[in-house]
Amino acid sequence: MLRVDLNSDVGESYGNFKCGNDEVNMSYLTSVNLACGFHAGDATVMRNTVEMAYKKGLAIGVHPGLPDLQGFGRRKMDVDPEEARNFVLYQIGALSAFTKVKGAKLTHVAPHGALSGMARTNEPLARAILQGMKEYDADLIFPGMPGMASYEIAKEMGLRVATIVPIDLDIRKDGQTVIERKKKIRDPKEVARKALKLVTTEKLETMDGPDKSLKVDILLVHGDGPSATDILKELRSVLSNADVIVEPFPKFV
Amino acid sequence: MLRVDLNSDVGESYGNFKCGNDEVNMSYLTSVNLACGFHAGDATVMRNTVEMAYKKGLAIGVHPGLPDLQGFGRRKMDVDPEEARNFVLYQIGALSAFTKVKGAKLTHVAPHGALSGMARTNEPLARAILQGMKEYDADLIFPGMPGMASYEIAKEMGLRVATIVPIDLDIRKDGQTVIERKKKIRDPKEVARKALKLVTTEKLETMDGPDKSLKVDILLVHGDGPSATDILKELRSVLSNADVIVEPFPKFV
Amino acid sequence: MLRVDLNSDVGESYGNFKCGNDEVNMSYLTSVNLACGFHAGDATVMRNTVEMAYKKGLAIGVHPGLPDLQGFGRRKMDVDPEEARNFVLYQIGALSAFTKVKGAKLTHVAPHGALSGMARTNEPLARAILQGMKEYDADLIFPGMPGMASYEIAKEMGLRVATIVPIDLDIRKDGQTVIERKKKIRDPKEVARKALKLVTTEKLETMDGPDKSLKVDILLVHGDGPSATDILKELRSVLSNADVIVEPFPKFV
Amino acid sequence: MLRVDLNSDVGESYGNFKCGNDEVNMSYLTSVNLACGFHAGDATVMRNTVEMAYKKGLAIGVHPGLPDLQGFGRRKMDVDPEEARNFVLYQIGALSAFTKVKGAKLTHVAPHGALSGMARTNEPLARAILQGMKEYDADLIFPGMPGMASYEIAKEMGLRVATIVPIDLDIRKDGQTVIERKKKIRDPKEVARKALKLVTTEKLETMDGPDKSLKVDILLVHGDGPSATDILKELRSVLSNADVIVEPFPKFV
Repeated sequence: MLRVDLNSDVGESYGNFKCGNDEVNMSYLTSVNLACGFHAGDATVMRNTVEMAYKKGLAIGVHPGLPDLQGFGRRKMDVDPEEARNFVLYQIGALSAFTKVKGAKLTHVAPHGALSGMARTNEPLARAILQGMKEYDADLIFPGMPGMASYEIAKEMGLRVATIVPIDLDIRKDGQTVIERKKKIRDPKEVARKALKLVTTEKLETMDGPDKSLKVDILLVHGDGPSATDILKELRSVLSNADVIVEPFPKFV
Repeated sequence: MLRVDLNSDVGESYGNFKCGNDEVNMSYLTSVNLACGFHAGDATVMRNTVEMAYKKGLAIGVHPGLPDLQGFGRRKMDVDPEEARNFVLYQIGALSAFTKVKGAKLTHVAPHGALSGMARTNEPLARAILQGMKEYDADLIFPGMPGMASYEIAKEMGLRVATIVPIDLDIRKDGQTVIERKKKIRDPKEVARKALKLVTTEKLETMDGPDKSLKVDILLVHGDGPSATDILKELRSVLSNADVIVEPFPKFV
Repeated sequence: MLRVDLNSDVGESYGNFKCGNDEVNMSYLTSVNLACGFHAGDATVMRNTVEMAYKKGLAIGVHPGLPDLQGFGRRKMDVDPEEARNFVLYQIGALSAFTKVKGAKLTHVAPHGALSGMARTNEPLARAILQGMKEYDADLIFPGMPGMASYEIAKEMGLRVATIVPIDLDIRKDGQTVIERKKKIRDPKEVARKALKLVTTEKLETMDGPDKSLKVDILLVHGDGPSATDILKELRSVLSNADVIVEPFPKFV
Repeated sequence: MLRVDLNSDVGESYGNFKCGNDEVNMSYLTSVNLACGFHAGDATVMRNTVEMAYKKGLAIGVHPGLPDLQGFGRRKMDVDPEEARNFVLYQIGALSAFTKVKGAKLTHVAPHGALSGMARTNEPLARAILQGMKEYDADLIFPGMPGMASYEIAKEMGLRVATIVPIDLDIRKDGQTVIERKKKIRDPKEVARKALKLVTTEKLETMDGPDKSLKVDILLVHGDGPSATDILKELRSVLSNADVIVEPFPKFV
């Protein structure tokens, strides 16, 4: 039986600024990564988002970002490994307050945007971030991409890993995701086609090379993209028609 | 035997901006309240400060502030009780990540500056903040001032309380502290005299009225004041000469 | 001939966070107040918004707010008059860089949210803000509400004033606007009815008392409200049908 | 007759956080670069610093930084050229409000920290920043280092340039400055020796190679360094004893 998780970054509103359609999108998701106030999210958004996710039975993860609200954490910054580790710890802790009072569990840590991107190639940075995760709670799962520094170091450190693919972004043949400062409009049917192919044939289409063999656990759709809800609906429907079980990844990785 | 705790707000540096002489001051302190990134402090400062405090055996508390770095949390802001509760939870959580990885314990939550000041008279705000503390961990101690809304509600809610006096600030006869945007220079001997009188005779001098009867548990000295270290040295020496036991307040309240 | 200006706060997006439908709304507006990075707006948003407003021939004003991005400048803060004056000067200057390089002119300064609200009753604050405006450029117009401290002090100081009414908000009989942290949905037809009555009969409806006599110059619609565009369309159409001239207020005040 | 300017970054305090000893240091300086709220500085600090600098007759320049208060603008960030240009324009404008109301003149724009460092090698970024300067005021002087992208493009664009050397930092043989996240302690006599050699013999010592031939106009000392005041005193004294005229660089470049 094929299984996959549908995942989004959520809780990325900030005060009066709304981002994403979390409540609706969560009906289609099985896991979420919550922003923690660095690149997006504020304390009240975090509390409300934890409550929604908990009610819907989603796996709840931390989505730590760079301290760059203006750049939405999508501008690379030269941070020291040590400060990156502390950023991650701080954000895990902040979110844990809201899961703790709700009786919910933190299952994973999925770094955001440029922090995630840098950790895919910068080994000391990746190691520091993962050490922060591990010293906080060695059971936290790291969703990543095989071959990338962050994923391989997580495995080496004995952390549980899961394979995540940002199915609404372009992926280069080297496995790197093209981070978009402004999200492009994507055709839900085209995204769903790529997703189904990936789940059923373990072939990931790349933008500049041949398909990559990959067994995916998590399909990520960015909640702030202009067609996020439509993509999620389409994914859910297409996967369901293909008898793929869509459920929270901590159940099967 | 008389007992008292010497306490300061610490970890109030921010990036390149230094604030207070924490490492030196901690030699004289028995408990500390750590800033958590809202009015001051950053993730790396928090980690380093937790490590120092832990090594010296100090009681470690959370010092949550308003989200106002520019105003150092000393400007009153019209925040909703609900968002104040969430600010407090967020900051407790953020700090707890650093105590958790160190194996240290959070013993208390002492709101900072204007957040603390508002909670002394604004009941819904006080209740919300205290509910945040309690839902996170019902064993957390609230240091406050008898008669103030925050202290009385904490007691009513069944939280452990301690009586704290900012011995380096002026106190009005209504029990309110005069918050200084810029700290005045204080004479250490004069501060120590007031402190010793308070500890030994239970009489608190006020700036605009007669002495107030008060059994103090915690003497607070602001670490960013220009004479903080000298005041702490003097206090420690004067209390010691008077055979007052200076130790972490969670041991005796 | 009756004349009125249609005005909105614009340029309130911030990085990845979109706020308001500025480009569309500007087709219906005759003047705009641009956010300057304190409560909303960033440097690139400011530049792009100035360019759009200039192309459409709108009167361009400064919309200085409190330094509170998270609260969107809608939380009152205890700022000193002196710092408020400096906040206003800073923001006027920042926006002036973008008008200068475009060859556009700054015509007015309309404080935002809580800063505006506080200046309506706090005389020292109002005076400080207006002094900042005047020392920068004595020709800047202050849009305000007769009877309020800020408006009356502006007149007394010899500044040009204009009467502005936030037609999409509730107004109390004391002339104070009810600031909404989250904008309510408003019926465009109802807003337009109130506006036309105000423009043609000089009667302003209040939420808790009788109509107030008032000659309005500027009708303000909040661009971040959920029905802003519909309200603006309706206003433009209703005013036009009633042969009211809708043009930039600096032409007629 | 040899001439040189003594220059510092000033106005880098932020709210309650003090940085540098501006008032004392200004007695030794002939020009200053004022922080503008992005990496350091706030509106009130800016106003007060402009007033001090104006009173002492110093050349007043803009010191625009990256929007990174926590990193003090010393962490490289992947900003687009267009947004960098807008950051610079915004900060020039903000500071110009305070010089305008004082009747002072802005003479130069000296980018700070990582923004300056990136513009030394990144041509599109350098060009964008300089275009921002030029479109604002074509008379603004750019202090830079010959051979660096920013300096050469400034010359090519017809801007006035001046040669600046951060005399309290290590300089590599490629002309790049080693940015220090935490300033090292420097021996004032050693700094003064290097400075005098540079001014009188046009030889700049590098940390990893032979001396570089260079005619310096401006000696920069970082005001937040731990020995800034001592270095400035020593420089002033040593230069004066050598009959070097120390005066604002706009007079002689």
